[in-house]
Amino acid sequence: VKSADQYLQSIRDGRHVYLRGSRIRDVTVGEAFGPAVRRVARGYERYFRDEPEAWHPMYEVPSSPDMLRERLHLVEDNDVTTATSAAVLTLVTACSRSEVIEDRYGDQIRAYMDWVRREDLRVAELITDAKGDRSLPPSKQDDPDLYVRVVDRTESGIVVRGAKFHVSAAPVVHEFVTMPTKRMKVGEEEYATAFAVPANADGVRIIGSAQSPTEEDARHFPASANLAMPEAMIVFDDVFVPYERVFLDGEVAESALFAHSLGLWERLSGLVDIAHRADVLVGLAQLVAEANGVAGITHIKEKIADIIIYSTMIRAGIEASINAAEELPGGICTPSELYTNALKYYAAANYHIVLRNVQDVAGGSVVTAPTIGDLEHSEIGDYVAKYLRTSDDIDARYRLSLFHLIRDLTADAHGGKYMVGYLVGGGGLMAQQLVTRKHFDMERAKRAAILEGELAARSNS
Amino acid sequence: VKSADQYLQSIRDGRHVYLRGSRIRDVTVGEAFGPAVRRVARGYERYFRDEPEAWHPMYEVPSSPDMLRERLHLVEDNDVTTATSAAVLTLVTACSRSEVIEDRYGDQIRAYMDWVRREDLRVAELITDAKGDRSLPPSKQDDPDLYVRVVDRTESGIVVRGAKFHVSAAPVVHEFVTMPTKRMKVGEEEYATAFAVPANADGVRIIGSAQSPTEEDARHFPASANLAMPEAMIVFDDVFVPYERVFLDGEVAESALFAHSLGLWERLSGLVDIAHRADVLVGLAQLVAEANGVAGITHIKEKIADIIIYSTMIRAGIEASINAAEELPGGICTPSELYTNALKYYAAANYHIVLRNVQDVAGGSVVTAPTIGDLEHSEIGDYVAKYLRTSDDIDARYRLSLFHLIRDLTADAHGGKYMVGYLVGGGGLMAQQLVTRKHFDMERAKRAAILEGELAARSNS
Amino acid sequence: VKSADQYLQSIRDGRHVYLRGSRIRDVTVGEAFGPAVRRVARGYERYFRDEPEAWHPMYEVPSSPDMLRERLHLVEDNDVTTATSAAVLTLVTACSRSEVIEDRYGDQIRAYMDWVRREDLRVAELITDAKGDRSLPPSKQDDPDLYVRVVDRTESGIVVRGAKFHVSAAPVVHEFVTMPTKRMKVGEEEYATAFAVPANADGVRIIGSAQSPTEEDARHFPASANLAMPEAMIVFDDVFVPYERVFLDGEVAESALFAHSLGLWERLSGLVDIAHRADVLVGLAQLVAEANGVAGITHIKEKIADIIIYSTMIRAGIEASINAAEELPGGICTPSELYTNALKYYAAANYHIVLRNVQDVAGGSVVTAPTIGDLEHSEIGDYVAKYLRTSDDIDARYRLSLFHLIRDLTADAHGGKYMVGYLVGGGGLMAQQLVTRKHFDMERAKRAAILEGELAARSNS
Amino acid sequence: VKSADQYLQSIRDGRHVYLRGSRIRDVTVGEAFGPAVRRVARGYERYFRDEPEAWHPMYEVPSSPDMLRERLHLVEDNDVTTATSAAVLTLVTACSRSEVIEDRYGDQIRAYMDWVRREDLRVAELITDAKGDRSLPPSKQDDPDLYVRVVDRTESGIVVRGAKFHVSAAPVVHEFVTMPTKRMKVGEEEYATAFAVPANADGVRIIGSAQSPTEEDARHFPASANLAMPEAMIVFDDVFVPYERVFLDGEVAESALFAHSLGLWERLSGLVDIAHRADVLVGLAQLVAEANGVAGITHIKEKIADIIIYSTMIRAGIEASINAAEELPGGICTPSELYTNALKYYAAANYHIVLRNVQDVAGGSVVTAPTIGDLEHSEIGDYVAKYLRTSDDIDARYRLSLFHLIRDLTADAHGGKYMVGYLVGGGGLMAQQLVTRKHFDMERAKRAAILEGELAARSNS
Repeated sequence: VKSADQYLQSIRDGRHVYLRGSRIRDVTVGEAFGPAVRRVARGYERYFRDEPEAWHPMYEVPSSPDMLRERLHLVEDNDVTTATSAAVLTLVTACSRSEVIEDRYGDQIRAYMDWVRREDLRVAELITDAKGDRSLPPSKQDDPDLYVRVVDRTESGIVVRGAKFHVSAAPVVHEFVTMPTKRMKVGEEEYATAFAVPANADGVRIIGSAQSPTEEDARHFPASANLAMPEAMIVFDDVFVPYERVFLDGEVAESALFAHSLGLWERLSGLVDIAHRADVLVGLAQLVAEANGVAGITHIKEKIADIIIYSTMIRAGIEASINAAEELPGGICTPSELYTNALKYYAAANYHIVLRNVQDVAGGSVVTAPTIGDLEHSEIGDYVAKYLRTSDDIDARYRLSLFHLIRDLTADAHGGKYMVGYLVGGGGLMAQQLVTRKHFDMERAKRAAILEGELAARSNS
Repeated sequence: VKSADQYLQSIRDGRHVYLRGSRIRDVTVGEAFGPAVRRVARGYERYFRDEPEAWHPMYEVPSSPDMLRERLHLVEDNDVTTATSAAVLTLVTACSRSEVIEDRYGDQIRAYMDWVRREDLRVAELITDAKGDRSLPPSKQDDPDLYVRVVDRTESGIVVRGAKFHVSAAPVVHEFVTMPTKRMKVGEEEYATAFAVPANADGVRIIGSAQSPTEEDARHFPASANLAMPEAMIVFDDVFVPYERVFLDGEVAESALFAHSLGLWERLSGLVDIAHRADVLVGLAQLVAEANGVAGITHIKEKIADIIIYSTMIRAGIEASINAAEELPGGICTPSELYTNALKYYAAANYHIVLRNVQDVAGGSVVTAPTIGDLEHSEIGDYVAKYLRTSDDIDARYRLSLFHLIRDLTADAHGGKYMVGYLVGGGGLMAQQLVTRKHFDMERAKRAAILEGELAARSNS
Repeated sequence: VKSADQYLQSIRDGRHVYLRGSRIRDVTVGEAFGPAVRRVARGYERYFRDEPEAWHPMYEVPSSPDMLRERLHLVEDNDVTTATSAAVLTLVTACSRSEVIEDRYGDQIRAYMDWVRREDLRVAELITDAKGDRSLPPSKQDDPDLYVRVVDRTESGIVVRGAKFHVSAAPVVHEFVTMPTKRMKVGEEEYATAFAVPANADGVRIIGSAQSPTEEDARHFPASANLAMPEAMIVFDDVFVPYERVFLDGEVAESALFAHSLGLWERLSGLVDIAHRADVLVGLAQLVAEANGVAGITHIKEKIADIIIYSTMIRAGIEASINAAEELPGGICTPSELYTNALKYYAAANYHIVLRNVQDVAGGSVVTAPTIGDLEHSEIGDYVAKYLRTSDDIDARYRLSLFHLIRDLTADAHGGKYMVGYLVGGGGLMAQQLVTRKHFDMERAKRAAILEGELAARSNS
Repeated sequence: VKSADQYLQSIRDGRHVYLRGSRIRDVTVGEAFGPAVRRVARGYERYFRDEPEAWHPMYEVPSSPDMLRERLHLVEDNDVTTATSAAVLTLVTACSRSEVIEDRYGDQIRAYMDWVRREDLRVAELITDAKGDRSLPPSKQDDPDLYVRVVDRTESGIVVRGAKFHVSAAPVVHEFVTMPTKRMKVGEEEYATAFAVPANADGVRIIGSAQSPTEEDARHFPASANLAMPEAMIVFDDVFVPYERVFLDGEVAESALFAHSLGLWERLSGLVDIAHRADVLVGLAQLVAEANGVAGITHIKEKIADIIIYSTMIRAGIEASINAAEELPGGICTPSELYTNALKYYAAANYHIVLRNVQDVAGGSVVTAPTIGDLEHSEIGDYVAKYLRTSDDIDARYRLSLFHLIRDLTADAHGGKYMVGYLVGGGGLMAQQLVTRKHFDMERAKRAAILEGELAARSNS
C-alpha cells in the first residue's frame, strides 16, 4: 500500500485540472484542493503498512452482513474511500447480477480490481452525462456528444467522447470508472459503454468546482478548511480506452445495470455520511445551546430531540438495510434495495428541516459572528472577547468556533454543497420513490388489505 | 391450553361490565363486544393443543434477538396477545432491571406468570390513572383517589381504590395487571402499588367503550365488525388483593420501573401493529387506485410511494430495535429503547399524513358510497350496480367494499380510535421525544461535533 | 320567504330517498336526516319575514368586495345556504364569463334564479359523475351512461340519464342544479349538458349516506346529532327536463365553464367552513387543556399555537381573496382565483395535522371516555362522576362533553366525513395545485428572477 | 434629499469599521461593503430630487391601509430603506402606544425624525444584546455590560456601554437607533435605555460580517456581488448621548414597548422581503426547469407549484395584515399583529422546504457548475460551451448564470445568511408562536367550541 507521500507524488502526473477559470498544474499545492488532498493523504497514512501483500480493507468484497457493517466504518472517514469503494463494488455487483456482463467482462473487471487494489489507487465514479435537453433521448439531441459515446474504435480499443458531471473527488484520485447514466435503447449502442481511464489520460480534462475557503484567513471555516472535497466535470475529448479496460460495449439491454448497482452503493455510503453529519449536528446544537445558556428551555430541547430522532432513524434504516442484505451469486453481499432507498428518501426529504432546527437553536450569530481575526485584532479583540463570552467556563473563542462551524456546515458554501448533495445524490426525491416502489412487496400489501375485508365477509356469512 | 369454547365459558364469570349506559351481563352475547370476543377466540383456536404441557408461545420469555423477532409475528395477529405479552414481559423486565423488585417480588411474579401460562389466561395492562388536575401530584389532588392507592391492608393483603383509564381489551380478558402510572415521591407510598386481580374480583367495575358497529347491517364496517377491540375504564372500589398478587408495595424509588418497562413493550407492539396497518393502507390505496382507473397517474403513485416509505421505515426501525436488543440479567432480551422510541415518534407523528394520502388517492366515495344494503335493494340495487361499477373486471360490490374498508379504517369510529391510539399510546409525541433523548448517546454526538473543529484547528497550527 | 314549517311541508313531496338499504318515505321524520332537516329549518326560521317581497340575502348577487365579505357570514351558518349560494352564483358567473352562455341561456338562468329566490328554495349542486374507469373519457367507457348525458329529446325538452356523486344535502333540498364535471370534447356533445330539476322529478332517485348518529342515545355525538348533513348519489333514470331549465346543451367548448365557476365558489365556502372549524378546534383544544390541568405546559401551548396559526392563515387567505376580488361583466364580483386556490391547498394539506394536534393535546379519553348514559347509570354513575372530575370547577359532565365533542369532530364518522371532505372537496390536492399554477403570474416571477442576475451583469460590465 | 454622491461622501466620516480581522477605513472603497454601498446609493439615486422640501417617501407616517400598502413597494427594493423605515416607525408607534413615552419623549422623537428626514439619513436598528448566559437576567450576569446600559450621566446626557448584535446594514448607514431587547424589571433601570447615536460617534465600534464574494472573479455570485448587505456587532465603549437623543431613560414598565413595536415593523418588512425572494425562487425554478428540458414533468411541476403556493400565501397574509391595520392615537396605522406574526411563523417554518424544492428541481449543477471564467478560458471554454448547452435556444452562459444564481441564493454564504435571517429575524419560531397566541381572540374560539355542544344540548332537551 502507498504512503501519504507516495500518494502525493502519484497525483502529480500531468493531469489537466482547472478551477474557477485557471489551470491548476499541481493539485497538491495551494488551498484550492488542499483540504481534499490532505484528507485523502490522511486516509493513506491510517492504513499504510510497508508489506508487499497488504491492502486497504475497502477493496475487500463483503460476503456477509457483518462484513458490510464493518465496511461502514471505513466509509465513514473519507469521501474518497467511499467513492473508490462504491466504484469497485459496483463492478462486482454488475457481474453478479448479469450473466452477460460476467461472461464477457468478468475477467477484465477482476483484473482491473486486482490492479487497483495492488496499486492502492483511488477511484472516482462517472455516471451523470451532460444530457442537454432532458426531454430528448441521447440519440435525439442536436449534439450527439451530450451523452458519452464511442466515436471510433481500433483493434486494441475504443475512442470515447462526451462529458460526465458531478464527479466527486475527481481532481485528487487516480482512476475514472465510467458507466452509462441510464438504460439505453436499441439503436443507442454507441452510448452503452462502460470503461476505466486514468485521470491523466490523453484527452481527459478535469474542470473542478470546490467549496474550500477562498478567504485569506480560513479559520472561520473550521470544517471546509480541512474537509472540503471538490467535484468536477470530466471531459473526454476522443480518449482512447484499451479493450482490457472496457466493461460494456454496446449491450444496451445491460446498460442500466451499472447505474442501478452504483445507485445502491452510492445511496448506502451517502446515508452513512448523512448519519455522521446528523450526529455532528445534534452535538453542535446541544453544545451551542449549552454555550448560550438555553439548553434547559423546552422548545430548544424539542428541536434537538427532532434532530436526534432523525439521526436515530437513519442509523436504524442502515442497520435494517444491512440486516436484510442479499447474497448474490459470486458471493458479494449487497444491502437491501428496499430499505436503502426508502431511507435515502427519508434522509433527503428531511435534511433541510434538520438544518432549520440547528439554526433555530443556534440563533443569528451563526451568520453574524466576528472572525478569529477580529478576536485577535489589537483594537477590537478585547471587545469581541468581552461580548462573545458567556461565562468563565465559556469564552469567546469557543463560542465563535461553534458559530463558525455551524455556519460552515449549514449556511455557507460547504454546507450548501451537502444540502444539495444529500438531496440529489443518487437521484432526487422522485428517483428514491421510484426505486422504493419497485422493490416493495406490493402483493403482500394487497393481500393484507384484502384479508381485512375477507374476515368481515366470513363473519357475516 | 384452552379451546375457543373454554375461553368463551371462562369469561362468563359474573364480571361487571357496562357499555353506553347499560350493564352487559354476558360479554359473549351480542355485537357490543362480539368482534373482540370472536377475535380472541380465533387466537385460542389457532394455538389450541390438547396436551397438558402445551402453552401459548407468547408466554415464552425471549432470550435472543431471534426469539424477539419470532414473537413479533404473534403479536401481529391479536391485540389481546399483544396486551398479555406486554403485561407478562413487563413484570419480567422489572425484575431484571431492579434488584429490589427481584428480591422482594421475584418469586411471586414468577409464580403468577406460571399460573397465567398454565391457565392460558389473557391479561390487560392497567397504567393510566384518572389524574384529576394534572398540574398537581397524586397527594395534592382534592380527592386522594384520583390515582390508584392502597387504602387499607390486612394480614393477607392490601385493599385498593381508584380507577385506571384506557385499558385495552379489558371486557374480554381474565386478569388485570396494575402498576403506577409514573414515579411516585417520598410521602406517596400508598400510590406506589402494583398488583394483579381477576376481572371479576369483588369491587371491580369495567366501564367499557367500543367502536364496534351499532348499525343493523354491519357490512359497511368490514374491519370493525370483526376486529374492533374495546377499551375500558376500570374502577377499584376497595378491592382486596392478596399479597401473593402484589408486585410493588410502597417502594417509591422503584415505582416508575413498571411504567418504563411497559412503555417499551407497549411501544414495540404498537409499532408492529402500525406496521401491519401501514401495509393494509398501502394495499388499499393501490387497490382503490386500480379500481378507479387512476393507478398510472403520477401524483397517485407518489402518494402511494409516500405510504410505502412510511411502512418501510417502520419495519426498518423495528428490525434495528431488535437487532440492537439488550440482554438483561435473568436472561430476558429487550428491544433497543433508543430505536423503539425514536421510531414510535416517527410513526405517531406521520400517521395522520398517511391517512391523508390514502384518502386523497381514494376520493370522496370513501364517505359517500352507498351500502351493500343499497346494492341489494330491489328498487335501487341496479342503479348502484350500474354506477359504482368500473368495468367488467371491477364490479360495484368490490368497489363498495374497498370504500367501506377505507372509511372504516381511516374516517370513522374504528379508524378514529386507532388514529388517536397510535398517537398517544405509550405517551404522546412529547413523551417519545423525552425517552428518545434520554437514551441517545449525546456524548458521542458532542465528540463528533468537536472533532470537526479540532481537525481544522490542527491543520491551521 | 318560507317559514320553517312551510319548509318541512315542502320537502314532503314524494321524492325517492334511500338510506342504508331502506326507503325513507318522509325525510322529516326520524333521526336519519333529522339533524339536517332541523338545521335547514333553523336557517329558514332565522330569515323568515312574512312579507311578499322579502328574500333571503344569499340570493343577492355580490357586486363588491364588501358584499362578498358580508356574504361569508351567511354561509358560515349553514351547509345548505352554502350549497344554494354556490349553485346560484355559479350560474351567474358562467353567464359573466362566457358570451355564448349569456346569449343562449342568460334569460332562462335569470328566470330560474328569480323563481328560486321567490320560492325561497334550497338547491344542491350536482357535478361529479360516476366516471367508471377514470383512465377513459366519457365516450370510451363501456357503459355510455357513466357520465350524465342526453339520451333523448322532445320538442319541449331533453331526457337525461346518468348519476351524480357526492351531492351534499341532496335529501333535504328542493332543486338539483346539474353540470358537466369537466370539459367535454368534440363528439361528446351529449355529455355537455347543464340543467335544473326538482328533487321529486320523475325518474330521480336519491341514494343517501349520512353520518348522523345511529346509536340509541345520541348525547355522545354533540355535534353530529344536530349538525350532520347527508350526502347523496343522485340517479337520473331518463328524467325529462324542459328547455327552460336547460343551461347548456351540446356546447362542448363551454362545458368546463360551470365546473370552474362552481369550483371557485365551492372552495371559497369550503374555506369559510374550515375557518369556522379551525376556530372550534382551537377553542376545544384550549378548553380541554384547561380542563385537564395542562394548559400551562409548553408543548401543549405550542400545539395549540399551531392550530391558531392554521386558523389565522385561513382567515388571512380568505381576506386576501376577497380583497383581490374581480368584477366581471354583468356586475358579479368573484373572489380571487389565485388566493382561493392556494389557500384551499394549504387548508386541505394541513388539516390532518391540525387533528393530530388537537388529539395530542386532549389525550386518549377522546376515544375511551364513558357516555352520559354511564354517568347517569345507577350502578356506575358515581364512579364516572368521581373519576372523570378534575376539580370543583370542572365536573365529569363537562369533561365528558368535551371529549365527546372532540371525538365527534376528529375521530368518528362525522369528523371523518369532514376530514375527507375538506381534502377532496373541489378536487384533491393535485387539483388545487393545478388551478393555483394556472392563475399565478409566472411571467412576473421570471422577470424577478432575471432581474437579480441582470443587476449583477450590469455591475460587472 | 441627498444624491448618490452626497451619500457616498457622507459615510466617509471616520467611523471605525472592521471586517474579517481588518480595519476598513473607507467603506465605499473595495468590494467588502461594495455591494451594500452601491445598493444604498441606487436607492438615493432613485429618489433624488434637487428641491429643498423634498423627502424620501419612507419617512411618511402611514395613516391608512392604502398608505401602508404603497409603502411596501418601497421596502421591497432596499434593505436599508427597510431598516430606516422600521426604525422611524417604531419610534412613532411607541409614542402612540404609550402615554408615558409620548409625554416624556414625544417631542424629541419627532424632532429626531424631522432631522433624519431632512438630512435624508439612513438608520439601523439596534436591539439584540450580547446576553451572555441567557438563563440569567441582565442584572445577574457576571459582567454587567452584557446588556447595553447607562454607566454614567452628565447634565447634558448619558454615557452608555455594551454591545448590540445582528445590526443589519450598520457599516453603511448614518444613525443607530438603540432600544432594550426585552422588558426590564424593577432594579434594572440602567438597562431601560433607548437612544440614537451617529455611526461615527466617539467610542462606537462597528465589527462587521459580510457575505459579499471574496473570490477574485465575482461573476459566479450574481446576486451577492451586487446585493449583499452586511451585518455588524456594534460596541458602545462609554459613548456619550445627549438627552435630546434619549428616548427612554429608566422607565422599566415601558421598556419592552420599543422591542414589540420594532418586532411588528421588522416582521412586516421581513415578510415583504420573503415574498420577493419567493417570487424570485419560483421564477428561477421555472427557468431552470425549462432550461434543463424538464418543465413538463409532473413532479417538477408539483415542486414549483409548492413554491407558488408558499409565495401566494405570503402575499395573502401581507394583504390581510394591511387590511386589518389598526389606527393608533396620533394617526399611525400599524399592520395587524395577529396576521403579521402568524404569517411570519408560516414563512419562517417553511422556507427551508422551499429551498429543497428549488434545489430538487435544479439538480446537482447548482453546486458543481463551472464558472464564467471557465467558460472564457482558452483551453476549456469550448468544452464548457458544448456540454453546458441545452439547445440552440439555451446556451451555456445562460444556464451557468441560472445555476450560479440558484447557488448564490440557496446554497452558499449569501443564501445561508437569508436562510438563517428569515428564520430568526424578529425572533425564532417560538417567538412568533408566542406573539400570535397573544393576539389571537381565544375567547371567540372558546365560544365557537361551546356553541357546537350547546346546540346538541338544546336539541336533546
